[in-house]
Amino acid sequence: MTARTKVKQALETGKAGSTILVKGWARTIRNSKGVTFISLNDGSCLSGIQVVVEPDLGNFEEITGIGTGSALAVTGLLQESPAAGQALELKAQQLEVVGGADQEYPMQKKRHTFEYLRTIAHLRVRSNTFGAVFRVRSALAQEVHRFFAERGFLYVHTPIITANDCEGAGELFRVTTLDLAQPPLVEGAIDFSRDFFATATGLTVSGQLEGELFAQAFSDIYTFGPTFRAENSNTARHAAEFWMIEPEMAFADLADDADLAEAFFKRLCRFALDNCGEDMNFFNTQIDKGLIQRIEAVAQASFARMDYGEAIERLKKAPVSFQFPVEWGLDLQSEHERYLTEQVVGGPVFILNYPKDIKAFYMRQNDDGRTVAAMDLLVPKVGEIIGGSQREERLELLEQRMLETGIAPESLSWYLDTRRWGSTPHAGFGLGFERLIMYLTGMENIRDVIPFPRTPRHAEF
Amino acid sequence: MTARTKVKQALETGKAGSTILVKGWARTIRNSKGVTFISLNDGSCLSGIQVVVEPDLGNFEEITGIGTGSALAVTGLLQESPAAGQALELKAQQLEVVGGADQEYPMQKKRHTFEYLRTIAHLRVRSNTFGAVFRVRSALAQEVHRFFAERGFLYVHTPIITANDCEGAGELFRVTTLDLAQPPLVEGAIDFSRDFFATATGLTVSGQLEGELFAQAFSDIYTFGPTFRAENSNTARHAAEFWMIEPEMAFADLADDADLAEAFFKRLCRFALDNCGEDMNFFNTQIDKGLIQRIEAVAQASFARMDYGEAIERLKKAPVSFQFPVEWGLDLQSEHERYLTEQVVGGPVFILNYPKDIKAFYMRQNDDGRTVAAMDLLVPKVGEIIGGSQREERLELLEQRMLETGIAPESLSWYLDTRRWGSTPHAGFGLGFERLIMYLTGMENIRDVIPFPRTPRHAEF
Repeated sequence: MTARTKVKQALETGKAGSTILVKGWARTIRNSKGVTFISLNDGSCLSGIQVVVEPDLGNFEEITGIGTGSALAVTGLLQESPAAGQALELKAQQLEVVGGADQEYPMQKKRHTFEYLRTIAHLRVRSNTFGAVFRVRSALAQEVHRFFAERGFLYVHTPIITANDCEGAGELFRVTTLDLAQPPLVEGAIDFSRDFFATATGLTVSGQLEGELFAQAFSDIYTFGPTFRAENSNTARHAAEFWMIEPEMAFADLADDADLAEAFFKRLCRFALDNCGEDMNFFNTQIDKGLIQRIEAVAQASFARMDYGEAIERLKKAPVSFQFPVEWGLDLQSEHERYLTEQVVGGPVFILNYPKDIKAFYMRQNDDGRTVAAMDLLVPKVGEIIGGSQREERLELLEQRMLETGIAPESLSWYLDTRRWGSTPHAGFGLGFERLIMYLTGMENIRDVIPFPRTPRHAEF
Repeated sequence: MTARTKVKQALETGKAGSTILVKGWARTIRNSKGVTFISLNDGSCLSGIQVVVEPDLGNFEEITGIGTGSALAVTGLLQESPAAGQALELKAQQLEVVGGADQEYPMQKKRHTFEYLRTIAHLRVRSNTFGAVFRVRSALAQEVHRFFAERGFLYVHTPIITANDCEGAGELFRVTTLDLAQPPLVEGAIDFSRDFFATATGLTVSGQLEGELFAQAFSDIYTFGPTFRAENSNTARHAAEFWMIEPEMAFADLADDADLAEAFFKRLCRFALDNCGEDMNFFNTQIDKGLIQRIEAVAQASFARMDYGEAIERLKKAPVSFQFPVEWGLDLQSEHERYLTEQVVGGPVFILNYPKDIKAFYMRQNDDGRTVAAMDLLVPKVGEIIGGSQREERLELLEQRMLETGIAPESLSWYLDTRRWGSTPHAGFGLGFERLIMYLTGMENIRDVIPFPRTPRHAEF
């Protein structure tokens, strides 16, 4: 019995004259002058292998009846192809219909809208676009782990279910086993002491706080896991469930943090270009014309660094009118971010040291008394893609910030403990993995880079 | 400014006579004949580096006052150590106390019980045992990705929030944004159409069903993500939140599935032995005496394969009395599994082809009409560690099994679609990542291999 050869391997390193066995799904089937041509795809790469079926094949009749989407196993002779765009094709010697497909198969050759394909997310992965998206997503996820492993970062699985409600990054999903129709009440309020965890719990919005705990033992750590937002916003950039990468480094300041973010982001861009070439070319041709050039520029760039204060000055002097106001103390909007990275810098730029009043309680206060050691990485066409900060390592200042922002210090006593004993300057950042994949593929809707997206009113599959 | 050297690097490749900068936390501090010896650990490896502080150091007074757990930055001369058990030590030339620690620091040198350490899970990672556990956990997680990446398996992030309630692997956690104290009711029942997802949702118990969808496009895929069980069981082996690895292969049968599981499991054993040597030696010495020998045996073994029917016969003939009955049609209990792997086989064994009535609806029916193509991998000392099956790829048989087990086929129409168009024989398995880590470290409580475990009444940190 011949062992199966993946299509990628057959096309890349196959030798004309050899007999191989391929298995996959018929993407297209056409007949020409009595010969049947099948493009067989097995997901290992974008291209299918062209299978040539001539009338002298034993079950030629059966084969001419099969539909697009059928699963086939083909043993054949690899031979040079006369057709343009492919070096090799497979002359079928034996063809088994493993699983047929009829005319109702929704993924016929015609083009479908992305909106429609979302309703058949279980089948859209059999298209060129979504095949490419999820191959790139997988390759990048694996590269994230390699990047951190090489640098000695410890991968930590921070908890998904959390009793912390003070991270302030949006509304939480509640997690419960209480009988919702008859919840236990005490004076009109839910008695969470009778819930599974004996307290109110929700889905995490970030692994950062727990990541910090691990950084204070292992020096360099990262998380890579799902995070959640119960925000009822139907935009192309928001999903209720998405994956985040959050490294954290002890004995590190904001400059170290930016250094890591720059090395990380450039490495991922470089990797996509060098290792996902066929899929990237597809995106560059079919989805976003300037994609490869844009990513190549970022991969080669030296990222600029600019203080928030300077950024505000630059924006005020800009010869354009923004929709949102520009004033020291206000957050930057997407239009401002894009102006800074595209027009002012002409490349990636870190904006550093934001006003403390628009940033989270855990960010380190600068000596000026009004800014914190926060950073955002802005890139052309997108704006912000990475956000991070040096964390406040000084116990009294952290407690003071918590009180100012309405967080009871005793609710996070374990977090404060790391500042009580062996505290270190430390810093980290977060990268939304879907944002990265959108950036690298040119796909414009987050629903199209998540296998089975969760958004308001949608939890299908 | 000297760049920081990690302790692991200093101890493994450092050269006597060189000046280096290390940063970490003082694990132990002792004074002898006027000289202070500090064991400095930075989490990069189990060992600390011995820092020697002599009275002529400028801030010697400050240093003699510091407590265990302090964060230090030490520049010094790497020199051969006269002490046993270490080749090199660091003679301090400059020592900065980055963050002090007082006598209230809970991780003093004395031994603590694992039970107590669970209550300070944010600090227990600064101990030898938990440092080793989470280094091994991280190293193995990264190796899981390398294993599958090398074989061309696509990594897929299956959804955490799910509207499927038919996986039948235990109680679900409910996920909701409804106001629990005043939920919308329709005729006494919760009106989930007004919930965030417009339907009842919970936390996933497995990514398998969605993984199968991806396998039907990419051939070979795997998931590695958190899964959940709302079981109110307080055992050493159950947690409400844990991570699972679930590969799935199209064009594969049960034998292929067992081949993959065997290669995978042996690779992970081999990797732990070869790449986590210091930590593994620690476990072998401090936690579980026969650990390394046991894992070495598995890494070298050829895994046996035995039909469930034969296993039952062997158990019936066993010259021991089991607590639970042995009868064809009953599931194997832990005592049976251990007897089979430890006494009958004397090594790892796959038990194949279980009675269909004790297995899930999606497993492929064998021709005998009473068994399904299920497999469990049993290993000495633990019993079952991997469970998998060939999936039912025949639409009519799958629908029939769903009806028999009380699952409405229309509730999983997307799942059935993969059997409707281009169906293939396919198979996969699941490995609970914490079970693997317990197996490889000898740790006996799942709470001690999860960073911040979630169990009934516990969601701290």
